[in-house]
Amino acid sequence: MRFELTILGSSSALPTSQRNLTAHVLNVYERFFLIDCGEGTQIQLRRNKIKFGRINHIFISHLHGDHIYGLFGLLSSFNLLDRTEDLHIYAHEPLKKGIRYMIRNYEGRFNYSIRFHPLDPHQQHKIYEDLRLSVYAFPLRHSIPSSGFLFVEKPRELNIRKGYVKKYNISVRQIQQIKNGADFVPENGPVIPNEQITEPPYRQRSYAFCTDTAYDESVIPYIRQADLLYHEATFADEHQDQAEATLHATARQAGKIAQKAGVKQLIIGHFSARYKEEQINRLLEEAREEFASTQLAYDGLVHPIYPYRVGRD
Amino acid sequence: MRFELTILGSSSALPTSQRNLTAHVLNVYERFFLIDCGEGTQIQLRRNKIKFGRINHIFISHLHGDHIYGLFGLLSSFNLLDRTEDLHIYAHEPLKKGIRYMIRNYEGRFNYSIRFHPLDPHQQHKIYEDLRLSVYAFPLRHSIPSSGFLFVEKPRELNIRKGYVKKYNISVRQIQQIKNGADFVPENGPVIPNEQITEPPYRQRSYAFCTDTAYDESVIPYIRQADLLYHEATFADEHQDQAEATLHATARQAGKIAQKAGVKQLIIGHFSARYKEEQINRLLEEAREEFASTQLAYDGLVHPIYPYRVGRD
Repeated sequence: MRFELTILGSSSALPTSQRNLTAHVLNVYERFFLIDCGEGTQIQLRRNKIKFGRINHIFISHLHGDHIYGLFGLLSSFNLLDRTEDLHIYAHEPLKKGIRYMIRNYEGRFNYSIRFHPLDPHQQHKIYEDLRLSVYAFPLRHSIPSSGFLFVEKPRELNIRKGYVKKYNISVRQIQQIKNGADFVPENGPVIPNEQITEPPYRQRSYAFCTDTAYDESVIPYIRQADLLYHEATFADEHQDQAEATLHATARQAGKIAQKAGVKQLIIGHFSARYKEEQINRLLEEAREEFASTQLAYDGLVHPIYPYRVGRD
Repeated sequence: MRFELTILGSSSALPTSQRNLTAHVLNVYERFFLIDCGEGTQIQLRRNKIKFGRINHIFISHLHGDHIYGLFGLLSSFNLLDRTEDLHIYAHEPLKKGIRYMIRNYEGRFNYSIRFHPLDPHQQHKIYEDLRLSVYAFPLRHSIPSSGFLFVEKPRELNIRKGYVKKYNISVRQIQQIKNGADFVPENGPVIPNEQITEPPYRQRSYAFCTDTAYDESVIPYIRQADLLYHEATFADEHQDQAEATLHATARQAGKIAQKAGVKQLIIGHFSARYKEEQINRLLEEAREEFASTQLAYDGLVHPIYPYRVGRD
């Protein structure tokens, strides 16, 4: 039942000796969804013992080199590791040609197929769905088309409270109906409402990924009340001018977005390489002035989101 | 007077948690020459504290992804670090377009110029020269055009033995003549032969880089008596069939080339990721059966070649 983020890289355009370029992995029930693929991602995947064969879907926010230069090596390694399963890539349209160019010029034929799914840079849309998960892309504001992603767990079946099945001798057909939300009607006796016979439902967990982007309140509706928000925080307050000029965000602005969107937790990352490790704490302080529940990204950070039940009034 | 190799990556096509993809740096009198640029090279350069600004020349052996996917990120970082100096890249012709494609699609304009020098895949030729160093490219045998490189130090000026200048009151003009090899003719007295008045000359140091390549004796004349040879050793004896099929070499074959070429030292690398670290010792043993003075490459290996004087009979 895992819903767990691993951060593989947390630097912005320049890697440092401590921080690799952007890449995240979201583990949803042991399926691994890769988000962005900066140079060195395949090495970071190995370090974090994430099996390459578990990755079937890669989401790319935008086509700046620091978010994609690890993709070519990773695709090549998939091939060398005898992958045959289709790989799905969700990215802005021009990358399709870029991947084809790379394979033709530096690789040769791959044993597996790449299914390319172009993102719409202009509006929110659902880009992926399976039994457990839906993924949405939505526009960010950056110097080139850039998309955020929202990963939302599907509603889970209700569980029948312990003892009820045996006590009332409930049939298999009835069990399924109750799990789907029906009340239980015993042969003799009064109707038992669904809320009484089932545990409170689990809340749908969610993860929102917002980088690269300027401060942009128009993302708020797309990420409202997410369990976890990763938002870029390239700069400190003192470099806000530069954030504006380059269409990046400050740590404080990331905190503001988290606060206005009412998310539960914020992780900030994509730090400019100008800040030494000891200076990055300042970014944390600035973000926390806006949103207390903020933490710093670091390479190798594992952040599980635990299932929890919704309270019933 | 440094002439020193640093190995940044020593794995073949797949990186491992211990070994990055191919990249070497040769430090010649504090100028840094980068050879191949596998994914992660810029991170390895940082780890090894090699200043990006000292790199003006990059040599690429061949256009397989594992030797070039670090190039795009490195070029991008040069730009972000406000490089203005020209960068020279020596590689097979198609990479020129590849670099242009990358810059156009994922970067924007660079602040510095890239000077591209195409390699001739068919014959040995001099590709670079300065006051200290000549670099030659020569053909290897691989599935696509592949070039080896030989870095040869230029002959150094002779040094006049201690005390002679003062004793004979030698003029500045005469000093230069003697350093260039002339005998010394005092105003009164017999000619002093150059061998007597100067220290024995330093031998020209050299480094030969041969990967990717099948076993190919035709490289021997190009690398004869090199101080240091790096030769690929992708496979152990037991996988010699596979070496032949993929046009790679075994460790034993690397040893044979070193032995036949009469080099002084051999470093083997580019190991298949199938071999665990403890198995790589077997490759060392197999190479040493052919050529005793062999060592294993590892990431971060620094191998200085010290200046030494040629004996005079």
